[in-house]
Amino acid sequence: MLNDKDTNASKLNSKEASYFIAKDKMAVVRSALASGNRTNLTEALEPLHPADIADLIEQLSTTDRARFIRLYDNKFYGDILSEIDEHIREQVISELNPDVLAEAVRDLESDDVVDLVEDLEEKQKETILDALEEGDRVAVQSLLRYPEQSAGRLMQREVVMAPEHWSVGMAMDFLRNNANLPDQFYHIVLVDPRLHPVGNVSLGKLMSSKRSVLLQTIIEDAFQVIPADQDEAEVAYAFNQYHLISAPVIDRENRLVGVITIDDAMVVLDEELEEDIMLLAGVGDGSVSDTIIETVRGRLPWLAVNLVTAILASIVIAQFEETIAQFVVLAILMPIIASMGGNAATQSLTMAVRAIATKDISSTNIGRVIRREIGVGVLTGLIFALSMGLIGVIWFGTAMLGVVIALSMLINLTVANLAGTTIPVLLDKFGIDPALASGAFVTTVTDVVGFFAFLSIAGILLL
Amino acid sequence: MLNDKDTNASKLNSKEASYFIAKDKMAVVRSALASGNRTNLTEALEPLHPADIADLIEQLSTTDRARFIRLYDNKFYGDILSEIDEHIREQVISELNPDVLAEAVRDLESDDVVDLVEDLEEKQKETILDALEEGDRVAVQSLLRYPEQSAGRLMQREVVMAPEHWSVGMAMDFLRNNANLPDQFYHIVLVDPRLHPVGNVSLGKLMSSKRSVLLQTIIEDAFQVIPADQDEAEVAYAFNQYHLISAPVIDRENRLVGVITIDDAMVVLDEELEEDIMLLAGVGDGSVSDTIIETVRGRLPWLAVNLVTAILASIVIAQFEETIAQFVVLAILMPIIASMGGNAATQSLTMAVRAIATKDISSTNIGRVIRREIGVGVLTGLIFALSMGLIGVIWFGTAMLGVVIALSMLINLTVANLAGTTIPVLLDKFGIDPALASGAFVTTVTDVVGFFAFLSIAGILLL
Repeated sequence: MLNDKDTNASKLNSKEASYFIAKDKMAVVRSALASGNRTNLTEALEPLHPADIADLIEQLSTTDRARFIRLYDNKFYGDILSEIDEHIREQVISELNPDVLAEAVRDLESDDVVDLVEDLEEKQKETILDALEEGDRVAVQSLLRYPEQSAGRLMQREVVMAPEHWSVGMAMDFLRNNANLPDQFYHIVLVDPRLHPVGNVSLGKLMSSKRSVLLQTIIEDAFQVIPADQDEAEVAYAFNQYHLISAPVIDRENRLVGVITIDDAMVVLDEELEEDIMLLAGVGDGSVSDTIIETVRGRLPWLAVNLVTAILASIVIAQFEETIAQFVVLAILMPIIASMGGNAATQSLTMAVRAIATKDISSTNIGRVIRREIGVGVLTGLIFALSMGLIGVIWFGTAMLGVVIALSMLINLTVANLAGTTIPVLLDKFGIDPALASGAFVTTVTDVVGFFAFLSIAGILLL
Repeated sequence: MLNDKDTNASKLNSKEASYFIAKDKMAVVRSALASGNRTNLTEALEPLHPADIADLIEQLSTTDRARFIRLYDNKFYGDILSEIDEHIREQVISELNPDVLAEAVRDLESDDVVDLVEDLEEKQKETILDALEEGDRVAVQSLLRYPEQSAGRLMQREVVMAPEHWSVGMAMDFLRNNANLPDQFYHIVLVDPRLHPVGNVSLGKLMSSKRSVLLQTIIEDAFQVIPADQDEAEVAYAFNQYHLISAPVIDRENRLVGVITIDDAMVVLDEELEEDIMLLAGVGDGSVSDTIIETVRGRLPWLAVNLVTAILASIVIAQFEETIAQFVVLAILMPIIASMGGNAATQSLTMAVRAIATKDISSTNIGRVIRREIGVGVLTGLIFALSMGLIGVIWFGTAMLGVVIALSMLINLTVANLAGTTIPVLLDKFGIDPALASGAFVTTVTDVVGFFAFLSIAGILLL
């Protein structure tokens, strides 16, 4: 493990840097890589946290990264590996000296090994599993049998538990005489004779209570058991909602099988929100360390869907070719209609997607939320109908054109808000991630309705 | 506090519901509110966690909420208050019986009271501060002196610390004889004689070590001190990056002044990501429980900015009025150009905004990231230039039109990716939140460049 004193001292000094990898540090690393100087490289990385070393590896070019892997072999590889972005992990694992890799993974806890191997190709996965000791391998394999992105994959099997009838003193003695305690634990899980968890006792409470006190009497208020097959997003929600620090995980017979700690839940929460952001923007699971080809592959499908919806909008416009030929001013104003509709739709869509994720929209209030959005659409529609109608009159000197813009702005914004809210709710009802498909659907609706309203109203009022 | 056994039992039973407030529960609450039946209301809420009661209050209509506040008075109000959405908190506080309110806030820890009062109006803030006991009031007021959204606001003042030379036995005895331990703590902070924190000892490690062992020898690897004036987003980053469970907070003289725990950091991480999502979508800090007027007020500025940028795009189009008059087909195709450019820009913009937030873009790799995005722009541009060019030829039967579309698609997507990456980076450099303003900037650039390229190329090649 790290030399604690040095690490702490240097972290204290570098706190001004606000967790950025300093530019000069990167320069030292790059020059050490260029000259193949192992000592300089190791010294430069010595004071860094494994998570920061992982970030640094991510920021290297592919060539420099290969050099880095050849040059730097040191016993922290386990922690660094589990911190590294999964897009880059495969490169690191495939180029790493097998002996170094084997030693690296032996350092990790079962849940970290699971996290490490679950996205690897079969061959790499086997290499790593083979490197583990018998007992650890069995533990990891049993975790891998849980569905992907389930609580079972998140939990660690190492649990500190005690029978529900124990006293504080018995628990203290048990802990003191147990050599195999996990690195990190915050609660003792009380279990009944059938191994069903019945409560959590925090270590702080345990230590400040008299030896004769029964554990049952000092269990925490916030207690939540997590089914092993629960989706990890729900796990993160529960930790965030109930301020849990750790929670016991149970199998289908309600027996204790593991424990999830808040740091793992925090990582999931972060990933889930990142995923929503990326999905809403149509980026897939990209990362800045991807290559051009990887990035294009991730973004192309979304752009292709967008092209199809844009063509749909164009087909609508094509129906009004003659109207536009007579009033070219309509072509000039079309982007305003499309842009305002798209923007309003994005606003209510984003609100709806997030509210679904945080369970703020439910069947009990969906009616009110939709009525609210229609109200917002009508009100903003009226405001921009007035202002844009006025601008239209002044810009082009035709009162009737102002009326056309005003009416279509009102219709467009109302429809945008209605579609922005109802489409994600409907997708969620049909089991589709609302963040995934809403953008394409909603944009199509607003573009089609917006252009159709604008051009047909123009056709009626101007011709 | 909650009746532990009842609460836990009912949570175990309701775990299938995946943390949703059941519809029938809501029906019972609504009917109790309608009939003014205090007993039914209290019974329905009895098994719920304060965070769930808070959610339930948020989902009520304003009228029902007022009824709820009048009807439900019970000693959990403190926890419920601190869980409730800040948009609704003011209503609850202003309508709550002052005695109930006073008792409620006395239950809370100092950091929760700070969280509760910091966004309130001066008058409500005073009411709550006056309700606190002298010592708590002083603690809260001292926390409120730290800047908003700083580590100082997040921390609790209750810290368990020990001199660095202590042994495990001394620490254990100290804990056992200390009646004033915080509700939740996970580490003992070791301090030197000047009160500078030098390390964390986890309670698990403490309990499993012999009494004679020196605390210094069992401090944790992951140790990070947080300056009290650090931005809370940085605090959340540090907890997530270094998997911290709790971290000591220091003043400018490096003296220990408090401690931040991971559950508070997780809330901040959640809020920061939510904020980015909302900013990227131009929604401000809205919530589904806002009224129509509040929502319109939040969204109007973004729509207004969008209107201005859309008008800019229209002005560009207006310069090509004669070209469009001759080739109305250009008007039909314009939305495709705008839509594809906007989409590509959103993709690279979102990647850049998130990479800045997670510190994956730094001065050491910004050059490579921008080159990568240009490459992606050119490659996707070529792909869609070919496909859309072909579609153009087939649809309208003019080869030259296909060339026009292809060329402008290439230019548009390249510029979109370039602008999508560089604009947020530049905004960040000038100290502006990249998520805040990027959308408006980037859309303007892509619309203006896209329409200009398309229409001027058309003018040259078709006329």
